[in-house]
Amino acid sequence: METVTQLLHSIQDVGRDDVRGGYSRAVYSTAELDLRSWFVDQAQRRGLDVETDRNGIIWAWWGKPQEGALVTGSHLDSVPGGGAFDGPLGVASALAAVDILKNRGRTPDRSLAITVFPEEEGSRFGVACLGSRLLTGAIDVDKALNLRDADGNTFADTARSNGLDPRHIGPDPESLARIGQFVELHVEQGKGLGAHGPGIAVGSSILGHGRWKLSVHGQGNHAGTTLMADRSDPMVAAAQIIVAVRDAAAGQPDARATVGRLTPVPGGTNVIASRVDMWLDARHPDDAVTARLIESIYAAAQDIAAAEGCSVFLTEESYSDTVHFDPPLSRQIGDILPGVPVLATGAGHDAGVLAGYVPSAMLFVRNPSGISHSPEEYVADEDADAGAVALAEVLGGLL
Amino acid sequence: METVTQLLHSIQDVGRDDVRGGYSRAVYSTAELDLRSWFVDQAQRRGLDVETDRNGIIWAWWGKPQEGALVTGSHLDSVPGGGAFDGPLGVASALAAVDILKNRGRTPDRSLAITVFPEEEGSRFGVACLGSRLLTGAIDVDKALNLRDADGNTFADTARSNGLDPRHIGPDPESLARIGQFVELHVEQGKGLGAHGPGIAVGSSILGHGRWKLSVHGQGNHAGTTLMADRSDPMVAAAQIIVAVRDAAAGQPDARATVGRLTPVPGGTNVIASRVDMWLDARHPDDAVTARLIESIYAAAQDIAAAEGCSVFLTEESYSDTVHFDPPLSRQIGDILPGVPVLATGAGHDAGVLAGYVPSAMLFVRNPSGISHSPEEYVADEDADAGAVALAEVLGGLL
Repeated sequence: METVTQLLHSIQDVGRDDVRGGYSRAVYSTAELDLRSWFVDQAQRRGLDVETDRNGIIWAWWGKPQEGALVTGSHLDSVPGGGAFDGPLGVASALAAVDILKNRGRTPDRSLAITVFPEEEGSRFGVACLGSRLLTGAIDVDKALNLRDADGNTFADTARSNGLDPRHIGPDPESLARIGQFVELHVEQGKGLGAHGPGIAVGSSILGHGRWKLSVHGQGNHAGTTLMADRSDPMVAAAQIIVAVRDAAAGQPDARATVGRLTPVPGGTNVIASRVDMWLDARHPDDAVTARLIESIYAAAQDIAAAEGCSVFLTEESYSDTVHFDPPLSRQIGDILPGVPVLATGAGHDAGVLAGYVPSAMLFVRNPSGISHSPEEYVADEDADAGAVALAEVLGGLL
Repeated sequence: METVTQLLHSIQDVGRDDVRGGYSRAVYSTAELDLRSWFVDQAQRRGLDVETDRNGIIWAWWGKPQEGALVTGSHLDSVPGGGAFDGPLGVASALAAVDILKNRGRTPDRSLAITVFPEEEGSRFGVACLGSRLLTGAIDVDKALNLRDADGNTFADTARSNGLDPRHIGPDPESLARIGQFVELHVEQGKGLGAHGPGIAVGSSILGHGRWKLSVHGQGNHAGTTLMADRSDPMVAAAQIIVAVRDAAAGQPDARATVGRLTPVPGGTNVIASRVDMWLDARHPDDAVTARLIESIYAAAQDIAAAEGCSVFLTEESYSDTVHFDPPLSRQIGDILPGVPVLATGAGHDAGVLAGYVPSAMLFVRNPSGISHSPEEYVADEDADAGAVALAEVLGGLL
């Protein structure tokens, strides 16, 4: 029996990023594959039966694989330069919760599975929650197989290199039917839990969120010879669009909009760019408000681009509606954990995708600064251990 | 005997960049090495004796290598996604000019050499005119050897892999003494030559220019969970700095300032960046004005960063004073090419570095749109051929 803190300690050197700080554990990178092996080993030590399904989701079964099982789990991949807890905390807490239940002499009345979902962050192939989207059919299979990473590898080829058959990737109703209820424990990614109250919360909803690509086209030219008045510099237009994105979101209560990824083409110091590609992440609880926000950003971007002699094109890369977790399941969990606060989150999760298909719920563990997707993400040992105990209570109560 | 147009035609497929368009011929890439082989072959076909010096500069000699020779040449490397003429036009015109002089039965009274300088663009190791800076001692050798490309390779290791001995890289007074006069023909990179006048100009000066790195530090965080009011987003600060750079240069007659290269860290779509690195290229004929421009940009950047809860750091990567070409040599060229206009340029060149050490001059060939460092860079065949003839006249007159 190991605590969640001990489990996380055993993977603290896997996938460290010396340049960005924190961890870079892209799906199917050496680091993420090492974590998958670590999970399989941990599951087998606990006598769980491990299988990997045709979408690369790992299932570790306590009891016989069956329909309507209770399922918990999270992911092991990270954003580039991410923290130690986003994903692994949920997986390690699930292992620790099984230990706690076994230690109490509990034998499950129905089967329980721990799952590890691939590419939750979308950091490699661009679509977040790719594993749960494939399982449920929430993403078109051809679109998924043709996604490319930054090196130009398709998802199909990468899946093949990792032992999956691209012909069998996609909706898997049999696996999905095995999920009677899904509970994901995750590090909180905002400051929703105060310093002195309980370290655990129950999730209520996930903000609707989407990703858009904005390409600003201008006139590539020589940085030394081109007079300022003769320029159509897409970087200058992109810069004003970034400010417009921030101002639009700041002016809309509960909205968030971010440009965190941007690539000038060709990207030389002595070259006025010919094109700037940037990605916009935007979220709001009301999907109609998000749609209007994107419309207003695009309109502003077109005006800005035109004033700089440039043009701009916007394409949606993904969108997920606002998700409200299953009310009966949330009530059951509230009864098992009385007095625990209820929190909405702005972050997407596999539980949010699954919620469209099976009763799903989430538990959040305190992150005092609220910082996440950063090396500074932090969970105190006592909160991590309390989270594993709470997960054990919830699983025990639902089994 | 081949025309310059035919010579350029023979390398039109080397180093094409299918993603950016145009050519990507970074120094010591396969493409640039192919062009170096092509040049050696062309020189040997003309009976020139070829040697590569300890800084990787190729010399092709018509006559015995000797002090005080007449030297012409340019470079074969390009910016990423550059045009067909920036560099190769000068090299091909030098070969064509030798053909023209030989065809006229001319035998040189003193030796003539054609040179090819490596890393003129600074696209791989960040310092423009690296070959001529090493030859003349205009760059510290240790600094040069420790320069790194985007993949982390040092210049020392790259030079070693390409047959150079890093211990012998650096100032080479013997080679430098062989340059009695240096003439570089280059595609014009502005709109200084009108559509109907002569297609050739004589260079008068090169704008002082420098490269600075601006690093904006903020707070990396989750793009979905972090409220707009809680952010210290370095991308939003960097965006405002880019606009401030443009406004500062636009408000200063004859100044140019550009941000063409920018890297957010970690660079994930769903991640507020923790840091943004960007590179500033700035130029003005008066070095004191450039210095004041950079000061005012840095002051504005600090105010912008502070207002966004970020901080910003500026470091100079390179600086070259304004260069005035040798007046006696320019007068000689003016006498050889009567009626040819005189042009200043905003672009740096090896001739500009050499001008600090030996009498140097430049010829420019018309580029109707003025567009350069772009696939759209263009020289009409008749202007290219007129350039080679003019270079032959100048070399013949100076020999």
